[in-house]
Order: sequence, then C-alpha cells, then structure tokens
Amino acid sequence: MIPAKKIEVCLTPALLPLFEIEHSIAVIIDIFRATSSICYGIENGAEAIIPVAEVEECAAYREKGAGFLLAAERNGEVVSGFDFGNSPFSYTPEKIAGKTVVLTTTNGTHALQLSLKAKKIVIGSFLNLSSLCSWLAERQEHVLLVCAGWKNNFNLEDTLFAGAVAHRLGDAFLRDDGAIAAADLFRLAQNDLDGYLKKTSHSERLKALGIEKDIAFCLQTDLTTAIPILADGRLVKMPPA
Amino acid sequence: MIPAKKIEVCLTPALLPLFEIEHSIAVIIDIFRATSSICYGIENGAEAIIPVAEVEECAAYREKGAGFLLAAERNGEVVSGFDFGNSPFSYTPEKIAGKTVVLTTTNGTHALQLSLKAKKIVIGSFLNLSSLCSWLAERQEHVLLVCAGWKNNFNLEDTLFAGAVAHRLGDAFLRDDGAIAAADLFRLAQNDLDGYLKKTSHSERLKALGIEKDIAFCLQTDLTTAIPILADGRLVKMPPA
Repeated sequence: MIPAKKIEVCLTPALLPLFEIEHSIAVIIDIFRATSSICYGIENGAEAIIPVAEVEECAAYREKGAGFLLAAERNGEVVSGFDFGNSPFSYTPEKIAGKTVVLTTTNGTHALQLSLKAKKIVIGSFLNLSSLCSWLAERQEHVLLVCAGWKNNFNLEDTLFAGAVAHRLGDAFLRDDGAIAAADLFRLAQNDLDGYLKKTSHSERLKALGIEKDIAFCLQTDLTTAIPILADGRLVKMPPA
Repeated sequence: MIPAKKIEVCLTPALLPLFEIEHSIAVIIDIFRATSSICYGIENGAEAIIPVAEVEECAAYREKGAGFLLAAERNGEVVSGFDFGNSPFSYTPEKIAGKTVVLTTTNGTHALQLSLKAKKIVIGSFLNLSSLCSWLAERQEHVLLVCAGWKNNFNLEDTLFAGAVAHRLGDAFLRDDGAIAAADLFRLAQNDLDGYLKKTSHSERLKALGIEKDIAFCLQTDLTTAIPILADGRLVKMPPA
C-alpha cells in the first residue's frame, strides 16, 4: 500500500518554489548553528525567538525597549554591535530564560522566511530529533524538510539531519528522491557524524571561525525535547498536545 | 596538499547561478534518457546533434531541408508529429549514421542551454563513463557536473552518475559537498544501480511510460567511448587529442 503522507526534502531554499509547501508542515533545518541554537534556547526557557530576515530589522528592535536580546550572524560571525550571534552557548538558561530574542542569520532565518506559506513551521536539529519525529509521526500531514544550506547551495550537515528524520519516519511516509538520498547518507554517517562532516569544505570554513565546540555541541542527539513552532511570527515552545 | 582542480556537483539546473561555470568544464547529465541517447547517437555516427530548448525551435528545422531528423520529448513521451524522442533505441547506426538530429527534451537540453557560459560543454552518461573520466582527469580544469534533474528538482539517477565521476576522479580534485554526497551515494548503489533506482518515485513514473528497456540500456557502463562536445551550437564527436 502506498502511504498517504509524503515526506520530501528541499535540499536548498532555492528549490522551495518547486514544492507545494502550503500542503505541508515545514521543518526548518540549519544545523550549524541557527536551528540548533533555537531548539536549545526554547528548551532553556526563552519566551520567544523572533526570526527576521535582515540585520536592519533586527537592529530596529533596539527602539522597542529593553526586553529584547538582539542576535545577528552573517558569514558565521556575530555582526558588530549586536548582543550575540548563533552560537548555542549564547542560549543557556542564565542568558535566555524569560527573554525574547530577535534573530537574523545567513541561512536559517532566510529559509524560514521563504517557508511562511507552510501549514505549520517547526524547527529541527539533532538536539530535538526524537521529540520532533514523534510529533511528525502522529500528524496526518505531509512533511517538507527545508535544508537552509549555505547561501542557497547544498550542504551536507543539513541534508544529514533531513536524512535522520526521513530514516526515523520510515515507511509510514512516501519519500521523494531527496528523502531517499538523505536517509541513505544519514545511515552511512550516523555512527560518526562529526568524522563524516570533517570531509566537507564547510567544516574547514567553520573550523577557521574557531567554532569546533559549537559543532560538536550541535551534533548531540536528543539533548532537548522542546519543539519550537512559529506562531504569530514568533518561535515559541509548542504547547503539550 | 589541497588539489588545485575543483570538482563540483550542481544537483539541479535551478542551482546553476550559484556556480562560476565560466571557469569550468560543464558535464551535462540526464541519464534517463537524453544524455545517454546523445552518447549512443554520436558513437553510432550521427554527424551532429543540435540541442534546442523549445519544441517550436525544433519544428522550425523542418523548413531547413530534409537533412535533419527531428527529435522532441516532453514529460517522457515523443511529441506528436516528430520523428522520435529520446529513447536510445532511436539512436542506432541504421537510423542515425551520417544524420544530424535536432533534439529538445524536458530536462537535458534545458540544462545544456543554461550552461552555455562554461569553458567547454561535454555530455556524460554511464555509457561513456570511463572515456569521459580519463579525458577530465587529463585536463587542468575545474569540472562542474550539471545534473538535469526532473523539472528543476533533484533526482537520484543523475546524482548517482555525478557520483560515479566524482568517485573515479577521486583525490586529484577538491570536492564540494555535492560531490562528496554524490560519490558516497554512488558507492552505496554501484553494485546494483537498477535495484537502487527502483526505490525512486521517478522510476515508477518511467515504468508507467513503458520504458524499462530504455532504463536498463542507459545503466550500462562503458558501452561507448565517444565524448560528445558542443562546438558552434552542435554536439559532435570530440576529435582525438
């Protein structure tokens, strides 16, 4: 029997126009580091994380009062003049509990902004993998895994995570070619994600930024259970069913 | 030592603007079935194959005289009123030797038209894999493997062939994430390409078209040695070095 639910992988935001996103739950994926940090921040009690596309939009929140933490990352670095960027170590309970973060990043918030027509938007990372997969499995909805990639091009770490989800959800969903490929790559890499990703050029670039600790942190599975979901333009913790 | 030559994989034509194609040799890949048939046709003595983007362009050659065979495929089927489409069995010596074919296809000729700024454009398929790889290995040039995909989206068969080339060329080239992923998928699938591709939705679609024989034909390795190359808008057999 052919399953009624589809799982598809959009390998880069440039391919989003090819999918009928309005019929799917979109899972936004930017493993290094935006969506990992969002999962960690929401788990650690951030009231909300507001994703914005542009640095200027983020800066504009300065005038809205002291209640906001402003986070801006471009090309892997904190934009000068901002509180912090997208390192998960900036999203600890001490720094973030009860706060609202306004966040803009090179790839992750870009992918999210392009996905706004989806039925629902949730945030995925290895940190909340099991929790996310359980929730997706229970829904009677199509799933579109949106890899943020690197400046609209394909990257391995986001694809591997999409593959982890496709692998977990298995035969209950009809998979497109992207989901088949991603799941196979995940199975190949799963016993040593960090080692596998060391082959990539992106990894070299991130190493040059001195963020190996961030990378190791973002590859931990099931450190958190919160699923960030977009509601009225803000990412908040999904309430219990 | 980091190799001076890059090998990159453009997973779909929609991603071509992200690559500096003008610095690379572009290999156009549309395994089912355009580039397989082009390799077979050029091997079998076709004088030239003229790739055109639109069915109307192809039809216009009717008025240029009887010297042209007109081939047009859309959505996997021969366009009504045309001599043939892109089945490799239409490109046998009896049908094609000494002839010039004017060809338009859903994906393959589209990818080629978008790649015209490349330093050189050559045609790849499993049929001419070894011959193509030897030639690429001898060049001191970057290589961009352009997967035609399916209507601008990712597909597995073109990616597997890109992976076969990346795998063969190995450490002599610096690989991007697309080339790393494609080579790993190829290694996973190489002992049973046909079985691996049976998992895909595209394969179901092609089966519905009744072209299983074409598929099996296109997955044969090294049936041919000719490398089709674009010269003055015509694909011709690359002359000996």
